[in-house]
Amino acid sequence: MAAIPAVPSLPPAAVPGDLLVRVDTPSLVLDLDAFEANLRAMQDWADRHGVSLRPHGKAHKCPEIARRQLALGARGICCQKVSEALPFVEAGIDDIHISNEVVGPAKLALLAQLARAARISVCVDNAVNLADISAAMVQAQTQIEILVEVDVGQGRCGVADAQTVLALARQAQDLPGVSFGGLQAYHGSVQHVRGHAERAAVAARAAEAAADYAEHLRSAGIVCDRITGAGTGSAEFDAASGVYTELQAGSYAFMDGDYGANDWSGPLAFRNSLFLLTTVMSVPTSDRVIVDAGLKSTTVECGLPRVADQAGLQYAAANDEHGVVRRVATSVAVESPFDAESASGGADTASGDVDLGDTLRLIPSHVDPTFNLHDSLVTYRNGVVEDVWAIAARGLSR
Amino acid sequence: MAAIPAVPSLPPAAVPGDLLVRVDTPSLVLDLDAFEANLRAMQDWADRHGVSLRPHGKAHKCPEIARRQLALGARGICCQKVSEALPFVEAGIDDIHISNEVVGPAKLALLAQLARAARISVCVDNAVNLADISAAMVQAQTQIEILVEVDVGQGRCGVADAQTVLALARQAQDLPGVSFGGLQAYHGSVQHVRGHAERAAVAARAAEAAADYAEHLRSAGIVCDRITGAGTGSAEFDAASGVYTELQAGSYAFMDGDYGANDWSGPLAFRNSLFLLTTVMSVPTSDRVIVDAGLKSTTVECGLPRVADQAGLQYAAANDEHGVVRRVATSVAVESPFDAESASGGADTASGDVDLGDTLRLIPSHVDPTFNLHDSLVTYRNGVVEDVWAIAARGLSR
Repeated sequence: MAAIPAVPSLPPAAVPGDLLVRVDTPSLVLDLDAFEANLRAMQDWADRHGVSLRPHGKAHKCPEIARRQLALGARGICCQKVSEALPFVEAGIDDIHISNEVVGPAKLALLAQLARAARISVCVDNAVNLADISAAMVQAQTQIEILVEVDVGQGRCGVADAQTVLALARQAQDLPGVSFGGLQAYHGSVQHVRGHAERAAVAARAAEAAADYAEHLRSAGIVCDRITGAGTGSAEFDAASGVYTELQAGSYAFMDGDYGANDWSGPLAFRNSLFLLTTVMSVPTSDRVIVDAGLKSTTVECGLPRVADQAGLQYAAANDEHGVVRRVATSVAVESPFDAESASGGADTASGDVDLGDTLRLIPSHVDPTFNLHDSLVTYRNGVVEDVWAIAARGLSR
Repeated sequence: MAAIPAVPSLPPAAVPGDLLVRVDTPSLVLDLDAFEANLRAMQDWADRHGVSLRPHGKAHKCPEIARRQLALGARGICCQKVSEALPFVEAGIDDIHISNEVVGPAKLALLAQLARAARISVCVDNAVNLADISAAMVQAQTQIEILVEVDVGQGRCGVADAQTVLALARQAQDLPGVSFGGLQAYHGSVQHVRGHAERAAVAARAAEAAADYAEHLRSAGIVCDRITGAGTGSAEFDAASGVYTELQAGSYAFMDGDYGANDWSGPLAFRNSLFLLTTVMSVPTSDRVIVDAGLKSTTVECGLPRVADQAGLQYAAANDEHGVVRRVATSVAVESPFDAESASGGADTASGDVDLGDTLRLIPSHVDPTFNLHDSLVTYRNGVVEDVWAIAARGLSR
């Protein structure tokens, strides 16, 4: 009897030097030229306005990306969950703001351990929670900086009256193990206000509300020299507001379909650098092909992904593991031609003429949850793979 | 100088014996009583109609669950991707149908390795692809069974004319390294036809189409003794059709919001066994609370999750890491009371009265992509944790 062969193991999707079109799919891929330009654009904007850039790790969950943001001048990073911060600290990043409330004994114990290993700040919007944080820090013989979260229009977490903000700030000053650091005033829904002028107006109202809370604290004798907030859609205005001292943007490094639908007529704009590479796995009819990337490779709550390289192809439906791509008549110019890559795909970028086995780049509609579906990111330049980075905080939502 | 403390590591969300309400969140949790009842119901239905049950591993991606399905009588499992099959083979499962087309040299090389380690069948809808599969199997000195996929109404992959089906079957008979095994006739969109009678009618038309293809093969002298298909919504009808020999259902073990919206007035029905446990992390106003489970813990393409235990609470909006839960006036009876668990949450199950730190069970709207977001599954019975199972094929979409 022959021995039973060993269970095969999964090879990496790519190795350095591979052609992009030969990467195993579905795979998340990063155009390094566009990515690096985006990093520089936001850092330059922050520098020019004298505010700190603290990019959000929740967008990409990838320590290699955070390292590059810090190398260009970022002050530290944000994380949205305590567990999410762990791989970043492991990678040597020592200044992290947890831009969220942290509740419950298991999470506070972990937060305290984290505060022993790095400089950590955390959001608070509740007095009982603040007392619990203080107790956890005292127990672990460490310190954490408290940012009181204020609701400047989003209607999610955060305190919405000045008296409570003041009470929490005083409580943070009085309790052991914690110190009062300032305010978080993040407004999520302004980020996707489409019109540039309208977005500026909503961002201005949020900044004004944040300034009012800070002024209330100062008039009560409490120093408030850190106001953190802003996202990719509002960073242009928030940096120039004179109110925010720190920008938390994350998606700017990648862009996506949802941010792409904004009006970017201001001085700050970004390029698509993140794509989902997919393969045509079935060509059942003349008007549709099936690709191997569906709901388990990209999320659709902000719309379906878009085919980047062929104006004649439309991603029309997402199933769990399949995408239905339809051939559509078009005279629209292709926005981001596949360049060198299209050659070996054998595809005409104008006509939607694709064959079994061809690869296509899709633009995800929503970058944060899409990163969260993948364990690795294939980086490339000019159609050739440079590296594969671990999305080490993928799935760390506790 | 004190030594810098080590980077903390993330503890498991729970250990056996923990109370369910103390599990760290967000966590996917499985009610074992309901789960086991679901497994028995589908296996009994298959047995009663003399068809094989081959549950779909893509639904749960968890070898521990597949083992329990096999122990009750399942013939093997399905996987939707080659890479997805690896952890199942590693766990000793030796009969797997890849219910999908597999295209490209990297995937075919892996498929051939898999075919050396287990009994594998795979779908085909294209002659070039079939020749490539044959070459890959010959190269690896192994064999694979070919199921020609026919389109019986879904309009995704699959062949839609009898002559092509016959040509592919003959090609599979003639080529080395492959054998013709039968047909796959899966109809995805019938699964969520809401009305019981309407669903029966659509399923009957699909079964009739499958029978026609099989008859065409038989009249050409080709044995076709395996017809695989069916999902949770159509299994009742497909098992009794006299056409299908094998049921591929997956969600029946768990149920979800989308399947819950079907009319289950027939003899086959299932209970919700899968929940997303979440914690109230902010109580900013009297009419809303914020929970710690959003788009990175459950997908929303089939609707928002539903609060299982409190009729007075409605999950109203999903952000990346947050859920907005609103208190709503209601006189509706609670569908699945939290039983023992509610005691320590301190919550009134009727009034929507929850506090910071309370846990809630959510019913995901779509089970397959939700499993794909989590690395582990906490199992419980009567409010007490029994075990934590690895979702070992999570993220394996290549």
